Amino acid sequence: MEKLRTHIEEIVSLTDDEFDLIKRFFTTKRTLKNQFLINEGDDVQYEFLVLSGIFKVFYLDEQGKEFILQFAKENWWMSDYQAFFQNKKATMYIECIEAGEVLVSTLEGREKLSSELHKMEHFYRMKLTNGYIALQQRVKLLLSSTPQQRYEEFSKLYPDLLQSIPKKLIAEYLGVSRETLSRLYSK
Amino acid sequence: MEKLRTHIEEIVSLTDDEFDLIKRFFTTKRTLKNQFLINEGDDVQYEFLVLSGIFKVFYLDEQGKEFILQFAKENWWMSDYQAFFQNKKATMYIECIEAGEVLVSTLEGREKLSSELHKMEHFYRMKLTNGYIALQQRVKLLLSSTPQQRYEEFSKLYPDLLQSIPKKLIAEYLGVSRETLSRLYSK
Repeated sequence: MEKLRTHIEEIVSLTDDEFDLIKRFFTTKRTLKNQFLINEGDDVQYEFLVLSGIFKVFYLDEQGKEFILQFAKENWWMSDYQAFFQNKKATMYIECIEAGEVLVSTLEGREKLSSELHKMEHFYRMKLTNGYIALQQRVKLLLSSTPQQRYEEFSKLYPDLLQSIPKKLIAEYLGVSRETLSRLYSK
Repeated sequence: MEKLRTHIEEIVSLTDDEFDLIKRFFTTKRTLKNQFLINEGDDVQYEFLVLSGIFKVFYLDEQGKEFILQFAKENWWMSDYQAFFQNKKATMYIECIEAGEVLVSTLEGREKLSSELHKMEHFYRMKLTNGYIALQQRVKLLLSSTPQQRYEEFSKLYPDLLQSIPKKLIAEYLGVSRETLSRLYSK
């Protein structure tokens, strides 16, 4: 739980009492490679804060083709957020691609912490602000860039993911073919 | 300013005193067709809440090709949010495509209201949550859908925009050619 405290205190500082309250809303869960945290069609009751390991958030189209929405590593939050917030069935999957550990919390926990501690509402707002900006960048990248620009942008933003994630998945995330990506890697 | 109150009270209820405080952080501005609220390279000091009219948020690639990130109509917020939140120069433009009126506020205003009124922090968090979900849907649409699916999804989400925005701009927003879009319209 110390990691959770450090993570939150990057944005707001907490008293011990406050953190005692907060940590009651989180549980730790180990995840093995290829384990699924969310499956299409599930009721989505949880969101996850990654403590270690790497995860992919993806969905399938009608033909079963896979599309990666997001990777997640240490200190990233993940869920099928539309389903989580709007109480709908999952349209996505979350799969562990490198074994690790996550913290699990519920929407009730998020809302309760936000209403009881103004600081936590601030924390969640700041996290959402960053997430919103990152997604807007992802839309821009998808709309306009050439495969080379997408690859360069990704390398700049996530040099560590570039090392630890199979090329096949990176190609999928960038929406470029594997051959194109290999050509870019070899440059 | 009554529209602002109604807009906020969709999420949190306010006392008259609270609203008196809030409205001090907003000013009204009329916008004419083709007027720009943000230009690439600007310092982005403002965000806007649309009261009436229609706006497009777009950017240009190195070749000067235009890409539309977002349309905005009544009750939508808009800015170049990366620049606004992170104090960077604008990489986007906001142009009025149907004359109207906006409320203007600053980052200082947003932060001050959020820290002084827990309710307002909650309001902004909820707005960001919705924005985050909408953007995630936009990424999914761009990643995977055929022109027909994009068009259908857009018609379902924004039937009013479909009527009031030139086809050329809708094609650009969807990332499909104008010819393809015309074919879909005529179906």
